[in-house]
Amino acid sequence: MKKVSILGSTGSIGTQTLDVISRHPEAYAVEGLAAGGNIRLLAEQARQFRPKKVSVSTERQAQELKPLLPAGVEVFFGEQGLAEIAAGTDADLLVTAVVGSLGLRPTLAAIEAGKQIALANKETLVTAGHLIMDAIRRNRVSLLPVDSEHSAVFQCLNGEPAESVAKIILTASGGAFRDRTRDQLTGVTAEDALRHPNWSMGAKITIDSATMANKGLEVIEAHWLFGLPFEQIEVLIHPESIIHSMVEFKDRSVIAQLGNPDMRVPIQYALSYPDRLPGPARPLNLAEIGSLNFRPMDQQRYPCLKMAYDCGKRGGTAPAVFNAANEVAVDRFLRGEIAFLHIEDIIAQVIDRHAVIDSPGLDAIEEADRWARRQAREWRLP
Amino acid sequence: MKKVSILGSTGSIGTQTLDVISRHPEAYAVEGLAAGGNIRLLAEQARQFRPKKVSVSTERQAQELKPLLPAGVEVFFGEQGLAEIAAGTDADLLVTAVVGSLGLRPTLAAIEAGKQIALANKETLVTAGHLIMDAIRRNRVSLLPVDSEHSAVFQCLNGEPAESVAKIILTASGGAFRDRTRDQLTGVTAEDALRHPNWSMGAKITIDSATMANKGLEVIEAHWLFGLPFEQIEVLIHPESIIHSMVEFKDRSVIAQLGNPDMRVPIQYALSYPDRLPGPARPLNLAEIGSLNFRPMDQQRYPCLKMAYDCGKRGGTAPAVFNAANEVAVDRFLRGEIAFLHIEDIIAQVIDRHAVIDSPGLDAIEEADRWARRQAREWRLP
Repeated sequence: MKKVSILGSTGSIGTQTLDVISRHPEAYAVEGLAAGGNIRLLAEQARQFRPKKVSVSTERQAQELKPLLPAGVEVFFGEQGLAEIAAGTDADLLVTAVVGSLGLRPTLAAIEAGKQIALANKETLVTAGHLIMDAIRRNRVSLLPVDSEHSAVFQCLNGEPAESVAKIILTASGGAFRDRTRDQLTGVTAEDALRHPNWSMGAKITIDSATMANKGLEVIEAHWLFGLPFEQIEVLIHPESIIHSMVEFKDRSVIAQLGNPDMRVPIQYALSYPDRLPGPARPLNLAEIGSLNFRPMDQQRYPCLKMAYDCGKRGGTAPAVFNAANEVAVDRFLRGEIAFLHIEDIIAQVIDRHAVIDSPGLDAIEEADRWARRQAREWRLP
Repeated sequence: MKKVSILGSTGSIGTQTLDVISRHPEAYAVEGLAAGGNIRLLAEQARQFRPKKVSVSTERQAQELKPLLPAGVEVFFGEQGLAEIAAGTDADLLVTAVVGSLGLRPTLAAIEAGKQIALANKETLVTAGHLIMDAIRRNRVSLLPVDSEHSAVFQCLNGEPAESVAKIILTASGGAFRDRTRDQLTGVTAEDALRHPNWSMGAKITIDSATMANKGLEVIEAHWLFGLPFEQIEVLIHPESIIHSMVEFKDRSVIAQLGNPDMRVPIQYALSYPDRLPGPARPLNLAEIGSLNFRPMDQQRYPCLKMAYDCGKRGGTAPAVFNAANEVAVDRFLRGEIAFLHIEDIIAQVIDRHAVIDSPGLDAIEEADRWARRQAREWRLP
């Protein structure tokens, strides 16, 4: 019986994690759940999974939640609440599924408490990969990726050492605008972008797929997760998103992980690793799919990807600044304040103005993040 | 330093094995080489790799070979010579790359002598899988597949247990006639078949690809190698032969092994397992290839495949009879004695007449083989 806590239990990854757990009641118990403001759903989850501790964002929400809970469930809130769910339970494994920089401190606390980490929060490794990986090594815990691309690479490696690897190849659908030239991107709207073909995702990540900023963040994550230099991490456009990623070994053998898009597969693998349990995903039928297609990645076409590589290679606070500037820029695009191609302009300008701090601690990372957001918000059309 | 002996050193797999070894002189030493009649090449190999023992088919060839060898190389011949190279050296690993039933007894002898086996001989497992796997288990040695499909499955499994596997999917190019209907197969000639697109192979295996008898033999091999029932072994047509095979796990995650067709990759992996060494194959470039295609397998279209499944499920001497009847039938087709579609007629009739012996020993297997060959040779147009 593996004991699990979840940060972000009412979000997309959180609810799918609980779906996986509900299918294997003999294998998993829920120790703690932390959510944002969705009190009703959190209460329902608490009644079904009987965690010992739950947490919400504010004290007011905590008060609202209490009467809806079964007897004996302790209620926490705020940053301290997150830390309690992350590190203050008997959980063996923490699923970090909160969005944004909120996940960083509790994830570090969980690692220091010796817990395995199933990581579904991009910002954690992008902004503080050096701190996280150092804590992982010191505490000898496993860091299990939940993102479909990183889970794919993790499964393809299956314990083979980094020295055997020639490169890893992250696949990218190419996003909503993959069939347009750069010239044809001038007038595109948020609505155009939100018709993304393969995965049903939130608005932010859909825009990130169209700009490839998303793939850039994944490249930086892969660098930390698999201990490989950026020169050994490639991106390949694969519109069907059936091959989730690949590893080319030094003997030129390529191992790929495939499947129908279903986040429950990588979530479950992170929970069950190194074992595998039966899963609810639809089996892959390649004969029915007929063909898998591939196109080279073009960093000219996708400058956000190039900037992510550059920031990743630069290190220090650069990736945190890339991430923060991108988040604000996408938000401004979704609100209709700026055009699609302004996203890359904003990121480029913020990066350009940033004085990178090497080997930053948590405070320096958070300061760089705030600074970059301010810069990105203040950006005006030239 | 791993010590290696090779049965069939002057054939296609044998020479490629020595090519791999020559690229890693720090990793491998050659203990013994056995060849058929290619005295000149064997002598050259002996001068380059300095084995302690070599063997040829006949005493006369042994006499011819002696003066061409460096001092100190012992020369053997015939069945005893094969056994000496297989089991009578200090080799840690035996590469069984002889063609046909010749490989069976020496491979068993090597297993009993505690040697790892890199198996490139189909007949060994097809005809005597129960004996081989029993010896492998008793002697706790590794059986490493060299065939590209089985090496692919072995790499995809990478130590994961059979209980985690939903099915293995062997890919098949579909052979020379994959775009013809059964009706269009009536008049095809050996020359038509020998223009096979992906791998440059011998005539026998090219015909076996066109009839799918080859894939049938691989299905039976996979059954023994990976300990899976035939219901969990599928065949999928994949004309490009880039995905060499796949494993679908119970969680619906599919792991595939890909690469440009180059037998040195699986050969080297069998030698270097569990490590990987740099290899000479051309790296896979999927963006350049553009697309990978798949079609369902149709057992009506390929009755030889269906017969192989049936014989595999029946067990006993049935697979040996399938293999022997097929070999003779293909030989008769290549000589122009029979039509392409008679190959399946011959196999069907021989199988039909055979009284299967369960759990046969080596003698019973060899007797069934001889009987089936006789039957297949005597088959006349109705």
